[in-house]
Amino acid sequence: MSEQPHIIRKKTGNFLEDFRPGQLFRHKGGKTISEGLFTTFTDFSMATNALCKNARYANAHGYEGLVCPPGLVMLVAFSQTVEDISENARANLEYIDMRFGAPVYVGDTLEVETKVLGLRPSASRPDLGIVHVQSTARKAVGSSDEVIVMTWQRKVQVYKDDVDIEVEGFQIEADEVACELGLPAYQPETDYKALSHLSSADSYFEDLQPDSLIEHSRGRTVTDEHIHLTGILDNTSQVHCNQFMIDLDPDRYVGGELIVFGGIPFVLCLGLSGPDVADNSLGDVVYRTGRHTAPLQAGDTVFAATEILDKRDYPGRPDLGLVEVRLLGHKFVADAGAEHPDAPAGWKKVRIFELERTLAVKRRSHYA
Amino acid sequence: MSEQPHIIRKKTGNFLEDFRPGQLFRHKGGKTISEGLFTTFTDFSMATNALCKNARYANAHGYEGLVCPPGLVMLVAFSQTVEDISENARANLEYIDMRFGAPVYVGDTLEVETKVLGLRPSASRPDLGIVHVQSTARKAVGSSDEVIVMTWQRKVQVYKDDVDIEVEGFQIEADEVACELGLPAYQPETDYKALSHLSSADSYFEDLQPDSLIEHSRGRTVTDEHIHLTGILDNTSQVHCNQFMIDLDPDRYVGGELIVFGGIPFVLCLGLSGPDVADNSLGDVVYRTGRHTAPLQAGDTVFAATEILDKRDYPGRPDLGLVEVRLLGHKFVADAGAEHPDAPAGWKKVRIFELERTLAVKRRSHYA
Amino acid sequence: MSEQPHIIRKKTGNFLEDFRPGQLFRHKGGKTISEGLFTTFTDFSMATNALCKNARYANAHGYEGLVCPPGLVMLVAFSQTVEDISENARANLEYIDMRFGAPVYVGDTLEVETKVLGLRPSASRPDLGIVHVQSTARKAVGSSDEVIVMTWQRKVQVYKDDVDIEVEGFQIEADEVACELGLPAYQPETDYKALSHLSSADSYFEDLQPDSLIEHSRGRTVTDEHIHLTGILDNTSQVHCNQFMIDLDPDRYVGGELIVFGGIPFVLCLGLSGPDVADNSLGDVVYRTGRHTAPLQAGDTVFAATEILDKRDYPGRPDLGLVEVRLLGHKFVADAGAEHPDAPAGWKKVRIFELERTLAVKRRSHYA
Repeated sequence: MSEQPHIIRKKTGNFLEDFRPGQLFRHKGGKTISEGLFTTFTDFSMATNALCKNARYANAHGYEGLVCPPGLVMLVAFSQTVEDISENARANLEYIDMRFGAPVYVGDTLEVETKVLGLRPSASRPDLGIVHVQSTARKAVGSSDEVIVMTWQRKVQVYKDDVDIEVEGFQIEADEVACELGLPAYQPETDYKALSHLSSADSYFEDLQPDSLIEHSRGRTVTDEHIHLTGILDNTSQVHCNQFMIDLDPDRYVGGELIVFGGIPFVLCLGLSGPDVADNSLGDVVYRTGRHTAPLQAGDTVFAATEILDKRDYPGRPDLGLVEVRLLGHKFVADAGAEHPDAPAGWKKVRIFELERTLAVKRRSHYA
Repeated sequence: MSEQPHIIRKKTGNFLEDFRPGQLFRHKGGKTISEGLFTTFTDFSMATNALCKNARYANAHGYEGLVCPPGLVMLVAFSQTVEDISENARANLEYIDMRFGAPVYVGDTLEVETKVLGLRPSASRPDLGIVHVQSTARKAVGSSDEVIVMTWQRKVQVYKDDVDIEVEGFQIEADEVACELGLPAYQPETDYKALSHLSSADSYFEDLQPDSLIEHSRGRTVTDEHIHLTGILDNTSQVHCNQFMIDLDPDRYVGGELIVFGGIPFVLCLGLSGPDVADNSLGDVVYRTGRHTAPLQAGDTVFAATEILDKRDYPGRPDLGLVEVRLLGHKFVADAGAEHPDAPAGWKKVRIFELERTLAVKRRSHYA
Repeated sequence: MSEQPHIIRKKTGNFLEDFRPGQLFRHKGGKTISEGLFTTFTDFSMATNALCKNARYANAHGYEGLVCPPGLVMLVAFSQTVEDISENARANLEYIDMRFGAPVYVGDTLEVETKVLGLRPSASRPDLGIVHVQSTARKAVGSSDEVIVMTWQRKVQVYKDDVDIEVEGFQIEADEVACELGLPAYQPETDYKALSHLSSADSYFEDLQPDSLIEHSRGRTVTDEHIHLTGILDNTSQVHCNQFMIDLDPDRYVGGELIVFGGIPFVLCLGLSGPDVADNSLGDVVYRTGRHTAPLQAGDTVFAATEILDKRDYPGRPDLGLVEVRLLGHKFVADAGAEHPDAPAGWKKVRIFELERTLAVKRRSHYA
């Protein structure tokens, strides 16, 4: 080594000025879903659907084995896009038209690509702008084929690297991506009733009533486990794992603390809602729109509620129905001395998450 | 969504007044034991028996692969019963006649059912009573058969939902459940000696002497990892994971903190005792009785000791012997200025766990 | 149980006076690498090489499946030696000639043995001395064969059990251990280019320039997760997991806190360096020497840098080249009011780790 080595500091991720209309990122890595990742996240999320708990149950329903719940598929696929799209983001603004395709099993390898659809510089903040992208995740089938497991758009607020660079806005059309929930056929000869004690008895299609709001009973306190959880997803965003970076400029970050990756409350809210609305679901069809409305930090306890908005037949599947809901997440923050109508004295209820969600739910008439 | 949705808050779990004599719960979910769960818990517990560490060793002993240690089988099976039996419990009082059956491997799916044997309202506390249940865990074998892997009774103190409801006590007989430790045959042609360096040299049947007390040398500090660990077992009890619930009424909970699920010190004590008493065991036959004698919280360090009570031949298995022990768990709590005979100055030793345990231990004469 | 049982406190691990020249330890346990352990550590370490992320990519390169990264092999193999060699150590002083052999996959079982090469009592501290050992890890192949996956020497500072025992120094020759990096053949018919988007575009052999220093961009804060991580490796050293032991004599331990197992910053530094220097590596050939230069504790954030020292052809493999680097780890500690040239104001940069490392790196000419 010579006295004065050439020092290299590579740029990590892209900044606002790097995005171009129609630009395509084929993300690095890819990820094979191991039994370790499956258990860590599925069970962490408090998911209760026996399709992701009980291989005997999943096989009887026509699946090849334990089924990755939608939250896990989403976390793995989404995290693949972080380095290229949002490593230098301030906040994820919106999930749009997030649809699920083929079922994902342990051992499947997901690879993801993302197309840049739009960019809008901020009118008020010269260092920021919004990037609009469309991502699609595929899994390999056999040695040469592949199938889509998920597609979605998102809008994310990204920093500039050089504040003085002028950035031009643009917007192009999203691609049409064929991605429909893959469902095993209903098998009239299968004795589904013999399995019905393994799922909740009151969350069939017949039970879910529009214009009701279900306050899910459980809560889950998030600890600094979130650092590890986010890391094992290969999500490289530093605001979730680099406390020193935050210590250098604490005012820039909420409370001077690491921020919990949005995927964590996302899957926790899905999980907390499970026993009441998703225990008899064969999958989530689409999340039309979703967003994080307040940050989460280690020590917060996450709660969830579900508004049942609508329900209707599932075309071609008399054994199923489609249920439209709004999934809501919240936490309570101390507010000494105050009285709020929807919180215990001294506490304020803060909405942290909302997601428009369509589920494919089994009918009691066919399964129990 | 209309302006005023119908709000639903489902009751989670059962309360004292819900239990009936002979009532049978077939618990929801079931659980397939993944390699993720296996590693997380087996290795967390500090278990050292090579049957759960080294597939080559397990196969040579006639098992199909890595063997789930008794603590893991117990945690998975027990947790399946929490929602129906003890989600609304104050404390688990006693484990009774906990017996192990067929070996459990990664990939096995456990399903559990519980019968209600007894109920006794508290004489002094109108809001509480004791529920006595008998649970049995089975695993599927092939597509249509099943085998018992564990059976046990327990007594648990459960809250009433409505304090004013009068509850009548009852007690019925336990079922006879055939559940004997499944052991591979001793193979005289196997060169067991060639594997003997993989287990401890001084914990064979010949080494374990009645009327001795082994103070196991290691300790393990439990962190708030317990929240995650308990969650991935599908144990839904809120006192282990919902800090907000505790913040609302801290006086009701020890130290105003989350309480560590009893299964955590249970398996840690088993693990800490491993090198000295269980490294050459082929399994635990029965836990005649066991109880938690003080709560554990994040930050506490768990220690263990084993009293060797008795030993005798294993009928029909000259290669093995039965060893009766009492496994004891303890922690130290600061007690400034005090002197206690069995603790360093300024500390008090607190018993947290005790378990009467019968092990099936290899004889040196046949294995080393 | 009689009134006064015979109390047994076994000695755990060896002390300075127990080591003899040429003494061979065949370590207990062994360890089968599960998908749980693989994911927990590989993903924790922030490793990015697609060989350990993407089974499709690994298979296309001629491997049998996801490849355990060198850091994971090292952690598993090293931890097997802790009980016999360093359970009673004060500090690990040096890694020497650490070489990798056959690739390790999920499901492989590692067993390790260690030979004692040297001992040197401390001139200044009568309670301490240095032990020099050589360890080799093998995995079983089929039912009766085995292959070397790793070999290394290390020097470790070990306490005496009895300070008054006089200990004689000694030094013998290391064994010659044949251990060369196992590499699948280059297959000219494979379309490697079609996979090249899955690894970083600027870390091929052609890109790595001697006399450069790459400051890797990311950092990772280590939490008390280190207790769990170290435990699941079967590393039994109490300074990593027994807070009560430290509370009894806090002055003996840095900051009165648990010390993070050196293997944690070791693999984190490897992982943090991944995108810049190891994304196109087929493996690490040798770590000529390495050492921990300052302790790490929960709350510290780990950073890494790599000096490129030299590069040369890989004999017999025109598709690869050998790159010699020095991997450096550091953290920042608060130093209020001070100004240091290589740290932000108020902080001091502390070197925690250094490792001389030779990588086998793909050439762009053959792969992209």
